[in-house]
Amino acid sequence: MSRVAILGATGYTALELIKLLLRHPDVEITATTSRQQGDPPIGAVHPSLAGRLDLVLQNLSPVEIASRSDCVFSCLPHGASASVISPLLDAGARVIDFSADYRLDDPAEYADWYGQVHIDPERLPEVVYGLPELFRDSIKSSPLVANPGCYPTAAILALAPLLAAKRIHTDDVIIDSKSGVSGAGRTPKLTTHYPECNESLAAYSVGCHRHTPEIELVLSKISEARPHVIFTPHLVPMDRGILTTTYSRPIGEVNEDDLLDLYRDYYADEPFVRVVPHLPATKDSAGTNYCDVTVRVVRGRILTISCLDNLIKGAAGAAVQNFNLMFDFPETTAL
Amino acid sequence: MSRVAILGATGYTALELIKLLLRHPDVEITATTSRQQGDPPIGAVHPSLAGRLDLVLQNLSPVEIASRSDCVFSCLPHGASASVISPLLDAGARVIDFSADYRLDDPAEYADWYGQVHIDPERLPEVVYGLPELFRDSIKSSPLVANPGCYPTAAILALAPLLAAKRIHTDDVIIDSKSGVSGAGRTPKLTTHYPECNESLAAYSVGCHRHTPEIELVLSKISEARPHVIFTPHLVPMDRGILTTTYSRPIGEVNEDDLLDLYRDYYADEPFVRVVPHLPATKDSAGTNYCDVTVRVVRGRILTISCLDNLIKGAAGAAVQNFNLMFDFPETTAL
Amino acid sequence: MSRVAILGATGYTALELIKLLLRHPDVEITATTSRQQGDPPIGAVHPSLAGRLDLVLQNLSPVEIASRSDCVFSCLPHGASASVISPLLDAGARVIDFSADYRLDDPAEYADWYGQVHIDPERLPEVVYGLPELFRDSIKSSPLVANPGCYPTAAILALAPLLAAKRIHTDDVIIDSKSGVSGAGRTPKLTTHYPECNESLAAYSVGCHRHTPEIELVLSKISEARPHVIFTPHLVPMDRGILTTTYSRPIGEVNEDDLLDLYRDYYADEPFVRVVPHLPATKDSAGTNYCDVTVRVVRGRILTISCLDNLIKGAAGAAVQNFNLMFDFPETTAL
Amino acid sequence: MSRVAILGATGYTALELIKLLLRHPDVEITATTSRQQGDPPIGAVHPSLAGRLDLVLQNLSPVEIASRSDCVFSCLPHGASASVISPLLDAGARVIDFSADYRLDDPAEYADWYGQVHIDPERLPEVVYGLPELFRDSIKSSPLVANPGCYPTAAILALAPLLAAKRIHTDDVIIDSKSGVSGAGRTPKLTTHYPECNESLAAYSVGCHRHTPEIELVLSKISEARPHVIFTPHLVPMDRGILTTTYSRPIGEVNEDDLLDLYRDYYADEPFVRVVPHLPATKDSAGTNYCDVTVRVVRGRILTISCLDNLIKGAAGAAVQNFNLMFDFPETTAL
Repeated sequence: MSRVAILGATGYTALELIKLLLRHPDVEITATTSRQQGDPPIGAVHPSLAGRLDLVLQNLSPVEIASRSDCVFSCLPHGASASVISPLLDAGARVIDFSADYRLDDPAEYADWYGQVHIDPERLPEVVYGLPELFRDSIKSSPLVANPGCYPTAAILALAPLLAAKRIHTDDVIIDSKSGVSGAGRTPKLTTHYPECNESLAAYSVGCHRHTPEIELVLSKISEARPHVIFTPHLVPMDRGILTTTYSRPIGEVNEDDLLDLYRDYYADEPFVRVVPHLPATKDSAGTNYCDVTVRVVRGRILTISCLDNLIKGAAGAAVQNFNLMFDFPETTAL
Repeated sequence: MSRVAILGATGYTALELIKLLLRHPDVEITATTSRQQGDPPIGAVHPSLAGRLDLVLQNLSPVEIASRSDCVFSCLPHGASASVISPLLDAGARVIDFSADYRLDDPAEYADWYGQVHIDPERLPEVVYGLPELFRDSIKSSPLVANPGCYPTAAILALAPLLAAKRIHTDDVIIDSKSGVSGAGRTPKLTTHYPECNESLAAYSVGCHRHTPEIELVLSKISEARPHVIFTPHLVPMDRGILTTTYSRPIGEVNEDDLLDLYRDYYADEPFVRVVPHLPATKDSAGTNYCDVTVRVVRGRILTISCLDNLIKGAAGAAVQNFNLMFDFPETTAL
Repeated sequence: MSRVAILGATGYTALELIKLLLRHPDVEITATTSRQQGDPPIGAVHPSLAGRLDLVLQNLSPVEIASRSDCVFSCLPHGASASVISPLLDAGARVIDFSADYRLDDPAEYADWYGQVHIDPERLPEVVYGLPELFRDSIKSSPLVANPGCYPTAAILALAPLLAAKRIHTDDVIIDSKSGVSGAGRTPKLTTHYPECNESLAAYSVGCHRHTPEIELVLSKISEARPHVIFTPHLVPMDRGILTTTYSRPIGEVNEDDLLDLYRDYYADEPFVRVVPHLPATKDSAGTNYCDVTVRVVRGRILTISCLDNLIKGAAGAAVQNFNLMFDFPETTAL
Repeated sequence: MSRVAILGATGYTALELIKLLLRHPDVEITATTSRQQGDPPIGAVHPSLAGRLDLVLQNLSPVEIASRSDCVFSCLPHGASASVISPLLDAGARVIDFSADYRLDDPAEYADWYGQVHIDPERLPEVVYGLPELFRDSIKSSPLVANPGCYPTAAILALAPLLAAKRIHTDDVIIDSKSGVSGAGRTPKLTTHYPECNESLAAYSVGCHRHTPEIELVLSKISEARPHVIFTPHLVPMDRGILTTTYSRPIGEVNEDDLLDLYRDYYADEPFVRVVPHLPATKDSAGTNYCDVTVRVVRGRILTISCLDNLIKGAAGAAVQNFNLMFDFPETTAL
């Protein structure tokens, strides 16, 4: 039985994580933390957990957390996460970090995109990016795994087969993504106030979304050159789900059937990537750890369409998949 | 040409009001106020008004407001509204108040339900309740009209024909209401955060919603005794619309066709009440100033179902209807 | 390992059932049927099942079905279901029927409400109604279980403690229910066409919904007299979830805290009924087999509010719960 | 007073058209047609029109229609529309056609994309495409106007300033569009069944949507060469609204501020195109005849984002705008 702690347990990714872990036969959740006053029961913060998990949210120190757990899932925001991870690792815990703090390997790039100096820059080069489809073996033995962003997972899984096989130019990749509102977190804001975003659709962070360098960096590890991407996220009036449409320029002649075969081969052994011949809808993978991908050739360009549940394959499900790898459980347990 | 000012213009009812008034051939909007810093253009606060109204939101004094306008629409919250209405009236403006401050006639009841002492109690008995279907003549000459609440309008229009005709007992009336989220206002809160209330339905303020005494008081003016109502509001995942289902106990024998005729007679001259034989949906009246009503007899009880757009017939549309009556324009202008 | 077959597997309840059964460690799905031509793979009919279940939909005879399975879940429509159940039982299968065919015990009442003569009337009196909270022991040994309707489950679980304890009058019970659209099934119709029912709310089948006698009959088994209910269903723009508000007249003095205790006692040993002090939202139980219930006293009436997922506790989850009881698995397995 | 007829009045664009025309001071709706049996009142087919328009839907001949009207709005599907337009024109009516039948000028291209031989090919070259921003003068005197498709309007208005000013290459234009569900029409289908498309997002008609040649043809009239576009539509869970994101390759150096000025100049006199500096949301233009457009430079590419209401600026509003031009009313009347 593995003991796990969840830091920053008031948000949606933490809630989804808890629901998954409650199904895991070899996991005991031993701590949930938040900075809320008064140690509220988890069921008061997440009514859907009423009667399912008898824990309170506490403001615990890293040492207390590490003493109670073998694995710590940090759902803290970026910046806050890096500040607790060193003491957790020092105290012997293994950590899966949902924040962006350890996803980039260059502190200067982190500072550029996140607007703050990284407080733990030495560790960056050795952290494993927790996308099992690309880095499974390294994840297994890593003390610290940087859990991928939701958009990057959808974009990377869509483009990886093309880049690995050198089938597209790296300097001209367009990524048009559409996400449900839960991706924006649980803190009320005007942009996610129901009557504002319901029945409405808008792009945001055009040309400046922080997932841009993450996508480029991870893809650079499987391609000849670091790709140059244009990434445009849109907010869609639904709770969950990401659909990403990419447009890239092929190298040489391409054929739709060959490309589908390329994808099927590339993901042949992957339990959570479904290469589908039809156009996937986000609902097909909602509530699951699947990423559905397809590929098309349109007027001389290659299109890919990928769908996943931003809270599961894009966050909590990927974390459980990483946890299973790190602690030697069957990779699909609880998923 | 009437000059109008709109106080507290950042919210949804003010937005809807402005959209209606922009269609009014005899109205010029001369001032919009808010407490926001920096006098933002109205199009920055309400992007849908970009290019349609060249005004800034200003923090004006009552005297300045009155000097610019013949009619003031106050969309301020309760408490705040009462504090500016006296000086506005003194300065010669006529006022339509969207808040609840002048809807009850008893300051003690106001204090009980709103948790604060009324600051202008002497004026309460003389204020006209702005429901044209019941109080058209008084509205025409009133300096101050209390614009009705959205739930009360739907409930009162549904029950008025039965009470006026003494067809139901006043001591046993159940009002089960369902409202879209815009009724909760534009201030972000966890309960109206998209991923919380989307795909979800809940009751709220059970047994303690402030529209309860308003419904009872207004209905008492057309019935033998003040009705005793149980009012249960529910929040529905849609932008706008209220559907109210009432259950009451008939006096004597009742027949569905006769009741429908009773309703048709009662509302025969009303431009904005549609008595329909089918079961109305909120979408039928969305975006309009109509209230759709029907009546049924089920197993010895009388059911009514009424639908309206909470922002229009339940707020801004009713206000324009009142404005037309007060300023002697055709009642349906701009509606 | 139990072998199970699912009849009429193209709809939403069947889909939900398959998802649950795929998590059940002791179940093998051996057949899925439909009348569609060409034996389509289940993943073509339900894209969310792509890669998860390697079966085709076949038009099998009852004998073939029974030969492949220990338990048959019939998701066929009423009428169609009764016509296959006799041969299935004769061939030795145990059956859980999602249709309404065996929920009423009086063939005349069935004919009245369903507009057709029952083809298997002799069996009616001996069929067990599959609500474990009321009939757990009988379910365990029954060859045929009538799985409850979604509305009846929400209404019965809300009212049962009051009726069993004789705390309310049976002749004056109002049930105002609100349901998500998946309850209307998967066949496209104008009323469930997205632009018709999205952003809209309407009542339907007022005074004539077929779940009325089902609610009354089941409640009559725990109360002094058959209750007389007024049941009003409404269609809410969300995928899933039912919220039911009931209003009833107490016998003697009542007190909210005492009533909550009454509910807690009544459901003390139930794994899937959560008596909550707060007002539950449908989202709290969405995707789960829970029914959340609370009780209030408002101006001399007792209100109850209950929420459940119409496809799970209201259909597929209840069926799995029944299956577990019938086949001696822990009641909560896969739920 | 102009007399107008509406053919195929059961759908959403016809409904929206009627609502707009009811606000037009110089229009009388004299006929509404459909193939439905029994001449149903318009309020029975569109409950929102109850009490607002006293007409029945009739199956009239072109001659009868023309005898009752000065202008005919045809909301018939493609193919059906062309078959009635010749007799209508012969009988002296002017026609605004919502179908695609007269949008392309090459019958071979029509046959390729619509899968049927055009029945009135001689007329194609002389029909005016009803986009006032590009063809205002020709519209004024045209007997037959082809009302634009919803996607083409959003794409053309976004790209026209760039192409007219020769600022982008014509051979590499990507158009990623997202539309609400009302664009799919009012006929129930599985893909637009509420529980299928709600809370879901999918691309459709990838590489083969019929609006592709329409976009290319219209843009060719203002650019050096016929552009070569990749057009990808997506279905978004909301009633109405289109957001189109385009990606194109600039000619020479570009600068965001200069491009915004280019757009402001290009649309300086247009009453219904709002060039905005912020990222527009579909809700900003919902229910209006506006198209909101902005432009960005991202990593060496030009992005445009345009939003409009698919039923208004994308259909019925554009038609009324065309009507006003054709019949010499102020262009913004009723809009």
